[in-house]
Amino acid sequence: MKNSTWFFNDVHVLANAAVAGPFEGQGELAGSFDMIYQDIYMGQPTWEKAERKMLSDAINLAVQKAGKEVALGGVELCIAGDLLNQNISASFVGRELSCPFIGVYGACSTAMLSLALASLVVSSGACKSAVAGASSHNCTSEKQYRYPTEYGSQKPGTAQWTVTGAGACVVGQHLEGISIRSATIGEVVDFGISNPLDMGSAMAPAAVQVIKQHFLDTGLKVEDYDLIATGDLGKIGHKIARDLLNEEGYPVADSFVDCGLMIYSDQQQTFAGGSGCASSAIVTYGYLLDKLKCGALKKLLVVGTGALLSPISYQQGETIPAIAHAVSFEA
Amino acid sequence: MKNSTWFFNDVHVLANAAVAGPFEGQGELAGSFDMIYQDIYMGQPTWEKAERKMLSDAINLAVQKAGKEVALGGVELCIAGDLLNQNISASFVGRELSCPFIGVYGACSTAMLSLALASLVVSSGACKSAVAGASSHNCTSEKQYRYPTEYGSQKPGTAQWTVTGAGACVVGQHLEGISIRSATIGEVVDFGISNPLDMGSAMAPAAVQVIKQHFLDTGLKVEDYDLIATGDLGKIGHKIARDLLNEEGYPVADSFVDCGLMIYSDQQQTFAGGSGCASSAIVTYGYLLDKLKCGALKKLLVVGTGALLSPISYQQGETIPAIAHAVSFEA
Repeated sequence: MKNSTWFFNDVHVLANAAVAGPFEGQGELAGSFDMIYQDIYMGQPTWEKAERKMLSDAINLAVQKAGKEVALGGVELCIAGDLLNQNISASFVGRELSCPFIGVYGACSTAMLSLALASLVVSSGACKSAVAGASSHNCTSEKQYRYPTEYGSQKPGTAQWTVTGAGACVVGQHLEGISIRSATIGEVVDFGISNPLDMGSAMAPAAVQVIKQHFLDTGLKVEDYDLIATGDLGKIGHKIARDLLNEEGYPVADSFVDCGLMIYSDQQQTFAGGSGCASSAIVTYGYLLDKLKCGALKKLLVVGTGALLSPISYQQGETIPAIAHAVSFEA
Repeated sequence: MKNSTWFFNDVHVLANAAVAGPFEGQGELAGSFDMIYQDIYMGQPTWEKAERKMLSDAINLAVQKAGKEVALGGVELCIAGDLLNQNISASFVGRELSCPFIGVYGACSTAMLSLALASLVVSSGACKSAVAGASSHNCTSEKQYRYPTEYGSQKPGTAQWTVTGAGACVVGQHLEGISIRSATIGEVVDFGISNPLDMGSAMAPAAVQVIKQHFLDTGLKVEDYDLIATGDLGKIGHKIARDLLNEEGYPVADSFVDCGLMIYSDQQQTFAGGSGCASSAIVTYGYLLDKLKCGALKKLLVVGTGALLSPISYQQGETIPAIAHAVSFEA
């Protein structure tokens, strides 16, 4: 018997924050972000330090917004991750925080993985509050995963555009506001896709696995959610996930969306859509939670999706394993 | 108010396993390992796949040993990590498991980080059992962090030797055996060390931070433990940690040891001692838990220690942040 879903009675969102890069600031959700940087370097000397600054800003903003709920004793615990080798964005932000720190790696599913764990820690009573965060930066990702950015190499239409941004969420035991009802931890799924420029197809089966498991564990149905948002499947992956879910008896329709398809305008050249840890992070912590706060949504499932490859793994001929983690929110 | 220490009432070690490379199989603890590979490639075509095989073997062995406790439904949850970019050893092992999977990154502290989280999940009631695992491989680490292995580049005496091995521990709610009493989650500490060939010095202050916090949170004293074992501080770092603890009123003496100094014999050329995720993993899950089982030890604190640098971070002139996580065992 698997126990994939953790149920929470008393975990609430105390505050959330999202910061975004200049390109994201020209997109559809620009009005939802707490901060939009004018410069892709964010005033830093390197892209890596720029990404770190974004994650730091997002975490500090979320903690500030949480105000007296966490301000008395500072943050009790930070759980964070990113895409960079050795998780350096998160670790170096941890250095500024003077609180217990846990680094996680779930590729682009990291925002929901860190939130699931933060919610469990708070729910267990081990901490009264915890902050979860994740970041990605287009230039650090391109440089690390693909070709030197300066090459300006061409891409196929299946490729995605790594979102530049960071998001953070402070959770705690509270009596009002948005509650986190459950988190479903995904399995590593590999359907044999080996093209690192088509990660949506690789991740779609992982999203389907965790969504099906979530419904199985909770007894809920598709129509119980006002919105089910995958993290960064993009045009190709989201269509595959939709088709698979429909085939397997989960009739998703207009309420099934993808964060990576919401960020940019049609005029922005992003191939199959946005990707990266920041895709689900800034859409959830910038846009979707606001929709819950204002009553436009009541029940929301966010499914962070991650492709667990590395440049070494695909150079060695491996296919791309993927994972997804789902967190359920209720207004 | 920080809440750095998680207390558990009912979490026990159901089974543990450690596998080691050929060089480690010539060391002091050879008799403690479940499996010693004759070949540094472990029969695989690449070092990365070799590391993956070790972690897979360790996790599968631990689960087999746990027998009917977990066998009825399979593993409920795997939490694992390693040193490779994008955590590929752990993620690709996750692909074999068909169970919920959480990737963590704590550099060489990962064995205790994953065990702390697995214990929390079990203690919270979210799962009945979970397996925690970590691995490292000398050749994958050298290649990734330092120079191409074929160069055979010289090293200073402060350098450490990455341990080739993997360890895993299955924890569950149980009525007998070794109990896990608490876990103290460390903070990211940076004392300004910037030499990537002296990680012991960088990690020592992090070990001291978490040990002090552990005693503060639990009310225990140094003499309450039969043994306090750091993960991989080596000769240089362990002496610094010992001196700092003594200066700050924690009089550690012969019961304060380091896993990285226990693995190899004096005849083996390992510079300042062993390091890597496998250092604390194979010493704890191979040797130390056996000492608890046979009654030679009653109370044990293992302090996993990790240096959170990446090649990029030190090439960009950054100092080395470090972290440590402590887990307390009782026979």
